Amino acid sequence: MKIALDAMGGDFAPSSNIDGAIRSVNAIDDIDIILVGDKAIIEKGLEGKSYPKDRITIKHASEVVHMHDESLVALRKKKDSSIKVAVELVKSGQADGIISAGHSGVTMATSFFVLGKAKGVDRPAIAATMPGLKGPFVVIDAGANVDCKPEHLLQFGYMGSAYFRAIYGSQSPKIGLLSIGEEDTKGNELTKETFRLLKETDLNFIGNMEGKDVFTGVADVIVCDGFIGNVVLKLSEGLAEAIIKMLKNEISSPLSKIMNYIFTKPAVMRLKRKTDYDEMGGAPLLGINGSCIVCHGRSSAKAIGNALNVANQLTKIRLDKLISDDFSAYGKKLVKNKSEK
Amino acid sequence: MKIALDAMGGDFAPSSNIDGAIRSVNAIDDIDIILVGDKAIIEKGLEGKSYPKDRITIKHASEVVHMHDESLVALRKKKDSSIKVAVELVKSGQADGIISAGHSGVTMATSFFVLGKAKGVDRPAIAATMPGLKGPFVVIDAGANVDCKPEHLLQFGYMGSAYFRAIYGSQSPKIGLLSIGEEDTKGNELTKETFRLLKETDLNFIGNMEGKDVFTGVADVIVCDGFIGNVVLKLSEGLAEAIIKMLKNEISSPLSKIMNYIFTKPAVMRLKRKTDYDEMGGAPLLGINGSCIVCHGRSSAKAIGNALNVANQLTKIRLDKLISDDFSAYGKKLVKNKSEK
Repeated sequence: MKIALDAMGGDFAPSSNIDGAIRSVNAIDDIDIILVGDKAIIEKGLEGKSYPKDRITIKHASEVVHMHDESLVALRKKKDSSIKVAVELVKSGQADGIISAGHSGVTMATSFFVLGKAKGVDRPAIAATMPGLKGPFVVIDAGANVDCKPEHLLQFGYMGSAYFRAIYGSQSPKIGLLSIGEEDTKGNELTKETFRLLKETDLNFIGNMEGKDVFTGVADVIVCDGFIGNVVLKLSEGLAEAIIKMLKNEISSPLSKIMNYIFTKPAVMRLKRKTDYDEMGGAPLLGINGSCIVCHGRSSAKAIGNALNVANQLTKIRLDKLISDDFSAYGKKLVKNKSEK
Repeated sequence: MKIALDAMGGDFAPSSNIDGAIRSVNAIDDIDIILVGDKAIIEKGLEGKSYPKDRITIKHASEVVHMHDESLVALRKKKDSSIKVAVELVKSGQADGIISAGHSGVTMATSFFVLGKAKGVDRPAIAATMPGLKGPFVVIDAGANVDCKPEHLLQFGYMGSAYFRAIYGSQSPKIGLLSIGEEDTKGNELTKETFRLLKETDLNFIGNMEGKDVFTGVADVIVCDGFIGNVVLKLSEGLAEAIIKMLKNEISSPLSKIMNYIFTKPAVMRLKRKTDYDEMGGAPLLGINGSCIVCHGRSSAKAIGNALNVANQLTKIRLDKLISDDFSAYGKKLVKNKSEK
């Protein structure tokens, strides 16, 4: 597969992106990468590095979208941005998927407008994978849509289910609705109506779930609006870091420090690795025609490398087609139900 | 001070409440407690226990609100519930404050309707204290209002600021608005408008903050709607437990287990204590005429004891009056601003 990588996006760009691309082509055989951005800068970054030269190419783009740019302004004015050029490579068939660690709002909106939505999907959504006590789980939407209607959350449920099935081979992923109580009647206006909609589907909907159960494996896919999803993602990241710091502060005696270093530190490091954003390697935007992975602004070369591998996999299995098929089956079911009534 | 305690509320009622009351009167001198609920059951629970008999009295209530009861139905039909009777003791001046670990929705609504809102407050809100890297911080609203308007969040900012000042003596607490990006323009419809309102106040408003900064001490008071606040609270609780479990699972070799037990376990226990809900002892409902503390359903006797002590303090300093004063000063300022324009 050929993946277009926005070389200019992210806090550590372009080196994290260039080095991530090199990691990826050196690690797996069936990926080719197009680095999109300022040609001179990218060429300099690649200089002297060891990798199969024919598998990383460069596509020049003269502009960069910065993190502080207003989405609408960037979309309208930066016509030759690395994000835009990368997405257009997918549109024209020169690339199979796109990755960016840059402005996520602009990446999503550009993919959405240029590639179009999958049939039946109103709002594409971010599916972020997180590590739980019983294995990984998916939060959808993790930040693409901050103001949602119940029908959007219903669609997130379908997309999340299709995604989890495709990635983890689970036949019937458990779909939970993030709310403020497990009872059917708990929630805000949005979740109460979403509950009603999800209950009527053929999804394996387990009902409302509380924040305390996010990590316990109650659900494989957690449905929420993009505002909550983003808060959940970032709070978890921050709290995991805070707890490890607090634990360090609590270990006070010098002997305890040494013993902890020898015996507990490897465990802490393994845990950190498991919960580390770098290992996750970005999150796909589901519900568009094509494959788009949005990475954390703080992505390291390792994170970008992992994201490239994930993009390669998702593109190979044609995840976007799987989701479209699910939606068209759902549409048929709706029509059938109506005619039966 | 005299505190009315709903003896029948909570997962471990009535024993957790009865034992919590005994802990409290044995620990501090200036508190008297009225246990409200089934007289025969409470008398049995007190039997043979050692405490100053004149400082715990009983007020009979014939009904109990159960966790699965619908709020509106319970409010309308259970006229002699332990929650209702306890709140009425405050209304009639026989008690100075009320505590319940029972149905929080019913506790809040009853306090709200019977005692009335503080002048200027539209929506009373829960202020939950949590442990951060730089000390405790407050999340408001932690669950009283699931659907909010910007003006409500503005009021949460004022109440949270007054609360933090009263409890921690800080002159100008830092007020943060929980959102999905630090930039002014980030957020959903609710937070964008709230940002604009908070910016015009004389509060020490530090702007938007992300989930990752909840525990880092960026803000003393975190403003959000009750749905998000509840998710933040419960997610943090669940994640802290999950991380400690994951860490245990990662420590695999027998020698590491022993060494960890000896050297790291005390630190983990101290950390657990710091982040433990039991130590927090419930959260006050701010913005009503009177003092009401809502406790976690899982509250132990220790948690109830701590909540009683907190209720005693808040009642002594007349927190409700402090908040009313803040609001009336704010109202005067608004009028002044308008006349200047």
